[in-house]
Amino acid sequence: MMLKGPNKSIRVVGLMSGTSADGIDVAVAQILGAPPNLRARIEHATSIHFPREIRETILRVANGAASSSAEISELNFTLGELFGDAVIKACRKFRVPLASVALIGSHGQTIFHQGSPSRVRGTRHAASTLQIGEPAIIAARTGVTTIGDFRPADMAVGGQGAPLVPFVDYLLYRNAKIGRVALNVGGIGNVTVIPPGAKPEGVFAFDTGPGNMIIDALMRHYSAGKLRFDFNADFASTGQVWPELLDLLLKDHYFRIRPPKSCGREQFGEAYTQRLIEWGVKHRARPADIVRTATSFTALTIVDAWHRYIAPRAKIRQLIVAGGGAHNPLIMAQLAAALDGVEVTTSAALGVPEDGKEAFAFAILAYETFHRRAANLPSATGAKQRAILGKVCYAPPR
Amino acid sequence: MMLKGPNKSIRVVGLMSGTSADGIDVAVAQILGAPPNLRARIEHATSIHFPREIRETILRVANGAASSSAEISELNFTLGELFGDAVIKACRKFRVPLASVALIGSHGQTIFHQGSPSRVRGTRHAASTLQIGEPAIIAARTGVTTIGDFRPADMAVGGQGAPLVPFVDYLLYRNAKIGRVALNVGGIGNVTVIPPGAKPEGVFAFDTGPGNMIIDALMRHYSAGKLRFDFNADFASTGQVWPELLDLLLKDHYFRIRPPKSCGREQFGEAYTQRLIEWGVKHRARPADIVRTATSFTALTIVDAWHRYIAPRAKIRQLIVAGGGAHNPLIMAQLAAALDGVEVTTSAALGVPEDGKEAFAFAILAYETFHRRAANLPSATGAKQRAILGKVCYAPPR
Repeated sequence: MMLKGPNKSIRVVGLMSGTSADGIDVAVAQILGAPPNLRARIEHATSIHFPREIRETILRVANGAASSSAEISELNFTLGELFGDAVIKACRKFRVPLASVALIGSHGQTIFHQGSPSRVRGTRHAASTLQIGEPAIIAARTGVTTIGDFRPADMAVGGQGAPLVPFVDYLLYRNAKIGRVALNVGGIGNVTVIPPGAKPEGVFAFDTGPGNMIIDALMRHYSAGKLRFDFNADFASTGQVWPELLDLLLKDHYFRIRPPKSCGREQFGEAYTQRLIEWGVKHRARPADIVRTATSFTALTIVDAWHRYIAPRAKIRQLIVAGGGAHNPLIMAQLAAALDGVEVTTSAALGVPEDGKEAFAFAILAYETFHRRAANLPSATGAKQRAILGKVCYAPPR
Repeated sequence: MMLKGPNKSIRVVGLMSGTSADGIDVAVAQILGAPPNLRARIEHATSIHFPREIRETILRVANGAASSSAEISELNFTLGELFGDAVIKACRKFRVPLASVALIGSHGQTIFHQGSPSRVRGTRHAASTLQIGEPAIIAARTGVTTIGDFRPADMAVGGQGAPLVPFVDYLLYRNAKIGRVALNVGGIGNVTVIPPGAKPEGVFAFDTGPGNMIIDALMRHYSAGKLRFDFNADFASTGQVWPELLDLLLKDHYFRIRPPKSCGREQFGEAYTQRLIEWGVKHRARPADIVRTATSFTALTIVDAWHRYIAPRAKIRQLIVAGGGAHNPLIMAQLAAALDGVEVTTSAALGVPEDGKEAFAFAILAYETFHRRAANLPSATGAKQRAILGKVCYAPPR
C-alpha cells in the first residue's frame, strides 16, 4: 500500500480475457479517492497465454458447440485456477507482494453474450450473459477478496451488459473545463464522449465502425498468414489510396445510424474483407493500395462520426487514443490533420498503457463495487438505472 | 425490522431449490447476534413450484444431456427471475414488506456437483460444482442485497462443497452443557453431532444411510404411482417386519464405513428398491411387510450409526429430527425406544419447521457471509480451512 496526501491508495489487480481467448491480461493498479476525485494509475501490466487446449475448449464452447453442465462447471473451475495463477505469476514478475494487493477485479471469460433478445442461428434467445472463471477460487489462491462477473447486474436493470469501459473512461478523463473523447481502435473502433464538466448521464459512447479488423484481415491474406497486422503502417505506407474505393466504403449504411450503436464481425468481418480483396483484383490495385485505403477508411469513419455525432453535441478539446490503432502513424496523422483544434494524443501519454487498458478498467470497476458505488453507464449500456456491478467473493480468513 | 434486547435482529430470506427441481423453498427468518450467541427463528416458510417446462429443462441439463453455453446462460437468467419472483410472492403472501428484508441468501439450482475428482459415465471429472439462478437478478427485482452460490468457496479450500447445513445445525443447537444430534431424514438420513460445549472443529456430520428414499420408492411401486410416500406410516403399520430381510439389509458394507461418509441414489436408489421388491415376491411377503421392514431398516441404520460412531465419541442428550421422517411415527417410536436416555424430539418442537429447514439454513449462511464470517465446517466438508461462503450481489442504488 502507498500513502499519498491525506488519503491512502490501494493496490488493485485487474484481470481480463477477451473473446479471442488468447490469454489473460493482468494490470496492477493504484487507486485513490472517490468520484469525482478518483485517481488511478497502472503500475504494471502483462499478458499470460492460455494453454492451447484450454483456448480450444473456450472457443468451442463459446462458439455454440454442444457442451454439458459438467463441461461448463469444470471449465469455470479450471479458468478460476488459471486466473488465480496469472495474478500470482504477475505479482512475482513485478516483485509485488500478494499481501499488498487489497482487491482483485476479474472480468472472466465470456462464453455467451446476448445483450438484448434476438434470434441466433434460427433460435430465439432471451437476453443473458455468461462469464466464467470462478472468482471464489481466485480469492482462495491469492488470499485477496475478488470481485467478478460484472455484466449481469447491468442486464438485470435492462442494460445490454456492455460496454462497461466508458464509465472508466469517464472516471479517468472527466474534466471540469476540457471536453475529451476516449477512442479505442481495437478490432472495432469505439468512442466515449465526455463533455466538459459532464455528469455520468451526459457521457455517451458508441462504435464508430471498423478499427483494425479489416486491416489485420487484409494483412493476413496478403502475407499468406505470416503477418497478423501492419506494424507501424509499414506496408500501407508503400501504397496509395484509391478514392473510388474509399467513397464506396464510406457509403455503408452503418455510418448514418445515430448512436448509441454497435457493430462487429457481422458487418466488418471476413466476408467484408473478401469483397475488398476481390475489388482489388478486379481493379488491378496493388495489395498495399488496398491496405492503405482500408487504413484511411478507418481514420475517416472516426472523423465522419466526429462531425456527425460528436462535435454537434459537445465541445471537445482532446482525443485520447488507445488500442492497436494508437500505434498506427497513418491513422494518428489523419486524425490530427482532420480534427482541427483538437489535440490528438494517446492514452499511454496520459499514463495508461494501451495494452493494459481493459484489465485496468476492471480493477477500477472492482474498486467502485468494493465501495458499493454504481459503475454502469446507462447512456452506454441502455440500462434503466444505475447498478452496482459484480459479485464479491471474500478471501478465506487468514 | 424487529428490536430485541440491546441488539437488533434483521430479516433475511432464504431460498433453496433441491436436486429434484420441484420448486423453490422460501423461508423468512429473523436473525440476531453473532456466534456463539447467534439466534435465528423462522417467521414464515412456503414453497413455489417451478413451471413444468422449467423443471424438465433443469432435470435434462442436470442429468448430463447435451446442452450449450447459450442454454445454460439463459437458464441462469430465467431461474434468477423465478427466484426473485418467489421472494416477491412469498412476501406478499405473508404481508412482509420487501423493504423490511435486509438480505437474501440463495442456494441456487445445482446443475452439476462433483465434490471430489472421479469418473462419471466413463469420463474423468475434476472436482467442481455449478449452481445457477443469477443472484444479480434476484437483487435487482427485490431491491435486496443477495448472496448466492455458497459451495465453490468451500471447494476452493479443498472441501467437497457439501454438506453445508451442519454448520447451521451447530449455530442453532450448540449448547454449553447438552450434547445434541440433529438428524435429517430426507431421501437420505444424515446427522450432525454437536458435543456439549463443542467448537466448530468438534462437530462432525455424516450420512447414516437411506432415509425415506426406499420407503417412497416402494410406495410409488406398490400404489402404481398413486402414492408418493407412506403418509403417517399408515401402510407400514398394517404390515410386519421380516427379520431375515432386515438382517440382510443391515449387512450392507456402507454401515461399517467410518465417518465422514456420504451416500445417495448410487447405493439406495431404484436398483436397490427393485431387489427388495423381488425379495418380497420370492418370499411371498405382502407389500405392507416390505414397507414395514424398510421403515424399520431406516430407523435401525440410525440406531446402528449411533452406537458405532456417535455414542463412543460424544455424550448426547437430545436427538432433534427434521425432514419427512420426523412425520413417520414408526421411525420416531423406534428411535425413542432404542436410544435409552436420549430425548427424541423434532426440529419443529424447537421452532424450526421441518419443511423450511434448508431454505432457513441458507438465510443463516448468508447472514454469516454478510458479516464476513466463515461458515463452512471442515469436519463435515473435508475442507483444509475455514472459508467465507457465497458471492455478494448488491441491490441497485434506490
